Amino acid sequence: MIIQLEQDILPGQLAEVQRELEARGYASTEVKTQSQHYLVGVGKKPVDIRQIGTLPGIRDIHRVSDGYKLVSKKWRVHDTILDLGDDIKIGSGHFQIMAGPCSIESEEQVSAVVDHLVANKVKIMRGGVYKPRSSPYSFRGLGQDGLKMFHRLCREQGIRIITEVMMVEQIGEMHDYVDIFQVGARNAQNFNLLDALGEVDKPVLLKRGMSGTIEELLQGAEYVFSHGNEKIMLCERGIRTYESAYRNTMDINAIAMLKKMTHLPVIADPSHGIGIRAFVEPIALASVMAGADGVIMEVHQTPEKAASDGQQTLNFVEATDAYRRIRAARALWEEF
Amino acid sequence: MIIQLEQDILPGQLAEVQRELEARGYASTEVKTQSQHYLVGVGKKPVDIRQIGTLPGIRDIHRVSDGYKLVSKKWRVHDTILDLGDDIKIGSGHFQIMAGPCSIESEEQVSAVVDHLVANKVKIMRGGVYKPRSSPYSFRGLGQDGLKMFHRLCREQGIRIITEVMMVEQIGEMHDYVDIFQVGARNAQNFNLLDALGEVDKPVLLKRGMSGTIEELLQGAEYVFSHGNEKIMLCERGIRTYESAYRNTMDINAIAMLKKMTHLPVIADPSHGIGIRAFVEPIALASVMAGADGVIMEVHQTPEKAASDGQQTLNFVEATDAYRRIRAARALWEEF
Amino acid sequence: MIIQLEQDILPGQLAEVQRELEARGYASTEVKTQSQHYLVGVGKKPVDIRQIGTLPGIRDIHRVSDGYKLVSKKWRVHDTILDLGDDIKIGSGHFQIMAGPCSIESEEQVSAVVDHLVANKVKIMRGGVYKPRSSPYSFRGLGQDGLKMFHRLCREQGIRIITEVMMVEQIGEMHDYVDIFQVGARNAQNFNLLDALGEVDKPVLLKRGMSGTIEELLQGAEYVFSHGNEKIMLCERGIRTYESAYRNTMDINAIAMLKKMTHLPVIADPSHGIGIRAFVEPIALASVMAGADGVIMEVHQTPEKAASDGQQTLNFVEATDAYRRIRAARALWEEF
Amino acid sequence: MIIQLEQDILPGQLAEVQRELEARGYASTEVKTQSQHYLVGVGKKPVDIRQIGTLPGIRDIHRVSDGYKLVSKKWRVHDTILDLGDDIKIGSGHFQIMAGPCSIESEEQVSAVVDHLVANKVKIMRGGVYKPRSSPYSFRGLGQDGLKMFHRLCREQGIRIITEVMMVEQIGEMHDYVDIFQVGARNAQNFNLLDALGEVDKPVLLKRGMSGTIEELLQGAEYVFSHGNEKIMLCERGIRTYESAYRNTMDINAIAMLKKMTHLPVIADPSHGIGIRAFVEPIALASVMAGADGVIMEVHQTPEKAASDGQQTLNFVEATDAYRRIRAARALWEEF
Repeated sequence: MIIQLEQDILPGQLAEVQRELEARGYASTEVKTQSQHYLVGVGKKPVDIRQIGTLPGIRDIHRVSDGYKLVSKKWRVHDTILDLGDDIKIGSGHFQIMAGPCSIESEEQVSAVVDHLVANKVKIMRGGVYKPRSSPYSFRGLGQDGLKMFHRLCREQGIRIITEVMMVEQIGEMHDYVDIFQVGARNAQNFNLLDALGEVDKPVLLKRGMSGTIEELLQGAEYVFSHGNEKIMLCERGIRTYESAYRNTMDINAIAMLKKMTHLPVIADPSHGIGIRAFVEPIALASVMAGADGVIMEVHQTPEKAASDGQQTLNFVEATDAYRRIRAARALWEEF
Repeated sequence: MIIQLEQDILPGQLAEVQRELEARGYASTEVKTQSQHYLVGVGKKPVDIRQIGTLPGIRDIHRVSDGYKLVSKKWRVHDTILDLGDDIKIGSGHFQIMAGPCSIESEEQVSAVVDHLVANKVKIMRGGVYKPRSSPYSFRGLGQDGLKMFHRLCREQGIRIITEVMMVEQIGEMHDYVDIFQVGARNAQNFNLLDALGEVDKPVLLKRGMSGTIEELLQGAEYVFSHGNEKIMLCERGIRTYESAYRNTMDINAIAMLKKMTHLPVIADPSHGIGIRAFVEPIALASVMAGADGVIMEVHQTPEKAASDGQQTLNFVEATDAYRRIRAARALWEEF
Repeated sequence: MIIQLEQDILPGQLAEVQRELEARGYASTEVKTQSQHYLVGVGKKPVDIRQIGTLPGIRDIHRVSDGYKLVSKKWRVHDTILDLGDDIKIGSGHFQIMAGPCSIESEEQVSAVVDHLVANKVKIMRGGVYKPRSSPYSFRGLGQDGLKMFHRLCREQGIRIITEVMMVEQIGEMHDYVDIFQVGARNAQNFNLLDALGEVDKPVLLKRGMSGTIEELLQGAEYVFSHGNEKIMLCERGIRTYESAYRNTMDINAIAMLKKMTHLPVIADPSHGIGIRAFVEPIALASVMAGADGVIMEVHQTPEKAASDGQQTLNFVEATDAYRRIRAARALWEEF
Repeated sequence: MIIQLEQDILPGQLAEVQRELEARGYASTEVKTQSQHYLVGVGKKPVDIRQIGTLPGIRDIHRVSDGYKLVSKKWRVHDTILDLGDDIKIGSGHFQIMAGPCSIESEEQVSAVVDHLVANKVKIMRGGVYKPRSSPYSFRGLGQDGLKMFHRLCREQGIRIITEVMMVEQIGEMHDYVDIFQVGARNAQNFNLLDALGEVDKPVLLKRGMSGTIEELLQGAEYVFSHGNEKIMLCERGIRTYESAYRNTMDINAIAMLKKMTHLPVIADPSHGIGIRAFVEPIALASVMAGADGVIMEVHQTPEKAASDGQQTLNFVEATDAYRRIRAARALWEEF
């Protein structure tokens, strides 16, 4: 059950609502986000919500019986729009391409990608400075210094930044240099990190776990939302299956399904999703047709020489073709 | 190694080629199909194919080192086109929608679907008369009588028929009433059935196994081709994964990949692929963008009352919308 | 619902029972096996079975609401025992090791294995004469001639034979030379083959499909049983997962669970289950502790030279050690 | 490559070794653990290790070409033994049962379990005070206060404690109250947490990820080891597959295989592994036969009333039987 509270609800009124919930066997959690004030009620017995809905201080009340609540589509009239400024928006009809290298490597590299993005009217650049690596002996990214350089070069051209955060301690120092915090597949159920990102007023892109269910992805988002941050998008990035012909099995079913289950934007990551350069574009196009609100892609001036795995990375020529086709597919999808 | 032989090769010439292969450690299999005559050589040592290619009776020779040979794209200049007559073609630029119920139930049902297909310019009707069912106590289809009725009603309107064959013994009696033999996921590695369908001069649609690899699907097709039948299409119908939110996980990656690996047409089955009515259309559209040469869909006048599972079946109104959008997506894809 | 009928039930009495079932919305299937006469009722409404149970000609009646009926443990007082003669029994406390090569290759090979089995008091030899192979160009077994030789050499020493049958047409010619018909993983849902094996009076070992569920395995057995053959055992042989460190992921959970769900014997196939020679023994031991009624293993005098894949095959020394430990583990398990 | 250094190696000698490695294209990482001093060399070119091995300050040098190094079995003569004091040891022939509730709930609960463990000579108690929960609205454990109570009650009876740590910040406050830090499946690739646990001088039990590969599990352990902590055990707790008959699919293959790949102890978690109470014991027995060095099980005085999921939890009577059989199976295994 989700109760939308009036912004000027009095403490006594709030306590009264909580008492009424408790009397009906419902535990309640108070949630204050950037834009609203909620009570989330969790319980099992059927309740006539009209009895509670008339209490003072309540704006609206909704029955949501799923494991996830605030991120459910059932109670929100409109889909979420994430606004990054300068008319760069994601969700509810607004589509964005995000592109860039796996890892931030150097000024030369970032500059080249930024120029490529500007030339192609792509507004958001991806690039890792903290890299989760299977082996402790691998390159783990340029860290905070790399992020500052990344930020400086993007700001000059109005490009927004999405980059991965791996631990609670990094959030503070990264905050001012990041436009979207990305949570990687390996941290999809790092609940402390999700809690902490719930206290930040910046968008968060949550990747589905290596073998995360759709329900788990939504519950991960619920962690962020219920700690106060409504600015969330979800990202399908391929799952583990028995098929070894591709790196991961991009699950386009999940995109179609998430669009019916949640009001949050859904992003497709075909680069990790299939993990093979030649198939990034067709999988991106397929994702658009399944309803994705955006695509995040790996692009590098020389994929063969990329610091991190370049096998799934497009060069500028391939990427330019892909952007054009992705936009054409999106335009057709909007006509439907 | 694939050796294309001249149609008028003399027995002595053929024996000479086989001897030369054997001398190089290659076992050879002779394959005669509707249109060509081949030797398939299987061996491990590197061979200079030019030494063999100049022998009399050989038209062309190609190195194909994959587990599958004749179905590989490596040696064929053009993709396969399946011609069902009256300009109904599949593959190499020709796209077809196939639609119809899970099971053939009655004349009324078939007539209604046929009218719906004619009205929507769909040329091929699907419908099962032999149904593989998990439980021995379930309805197993109308059998041969149902097929004859199905055939009669389709022929009147020029509609082609695709239906599942489950065992070698059925092939003979079904032959004259079928335009495309379908092999279901459960028989994807029923090698005796594949052998027998290799001796038929009708197209065969091979579904991927429940958890079949792409390689296994291609090798299944190799069984059919190497027994003499070049008229094959492959069908992605969803795989088994840990995700239980949908019936199967439609693997759109496979469509994109198969199109690079084989010259055979690739068909998408979104109805079984995701198994939920609301998502059949977006998954069909996604499949088209990944390069599918056709879509096979379940359609029924009253899905709620279908004899077999109607949960994944569109009604006529939904289907009509879906056809239109699928064709629009295909038209865009052809522009790329 | 399972109704055990009296052997001397009169046709009129049977018809009466069927009418009563129908009146309650239950479809009924008559099943006559080697030892009993049943009606299987399938319906959805709750029925007071006592009302039917008193009709003349009924011996007993049981509620079984699962998708599988006759193979369920719910109605059988005792677990099934398969009796191969000479006190060679499987199930309900009787444990058997079955061992032998992947493929039958030659008289020398069979003789050597038979001697090895006799020396180790193993009573049942495995060995394929019809081999399901991914590629149409691979060796597909010695066929019927190989089977006759296999049979002759085993008979002389009192060894029983288990071998794979791949198609309905093979059953007749194989029948007199086989003690246990094996259905391979690829044919686990070849329902016509299962139907036909239901009409044979020889034990059938059913392997779980590549990615078959436990429920599907039981329903496969239900096909055989409901066509008249009660002599069935089930075999866990590994499933497909994302883990590529082994060939298949032996699912020992399934053994423990099947033992609670069905009265049929459950056999473990560690050779295919994990597919790596060094781990066949520990997985066999683990299977015994999970309750397996038998183990089927690949053994060859020179695994390195085996005609079919020898990577999972033990040599005689390794096998001899394994038998001893398997029996010790079984002896301990029986004490529990 | 692993280079074991002399404890009294001089800085100049160390620098010389690093220079020689670099000259051969090898990056080196210095690792100082509780007991030893290493250089781990990572590179691709073949090197004659004898050329380096004779440099002053080197005790021994080993070629290890796997993705994981220090945790590999290839270079260690003896398997790792974890010593918890009072002759409570794990690994290399020492077997331990760890048992206790999913969550620590109350003094009464802990006392009852402690008494049960003492009566059964179980030396290590499990119990969560920080619980990773899919939903943010679920009970997340008693936290640090619960841990102190848990510790106090166990210490009185000489019982050791294993409990889950979820984030870097918790390590410090938990340190003095914990005998074994457990890293849960959801944090299996939380590399920052692994790094931090590498700086602690307490044993760490690493659970395999929900769909983690064996290689990833070993690389997770490599993170801990390479940051200085050699006291690690690995834990198989079931993986995600398509089979929904059990909660997870306990992968006993992994136990057998890990025992050949690493010198670290391997623990089986049948409670989470299969997730169904009736099958915890057979899966535990199977794990012992596959070579596990210990079993971790959920036990509760009243599983039906457990704060966290009690569906996989044994009561004291069931557990007492299970301990006895597990020890008997282990005794047999040691005879082999």
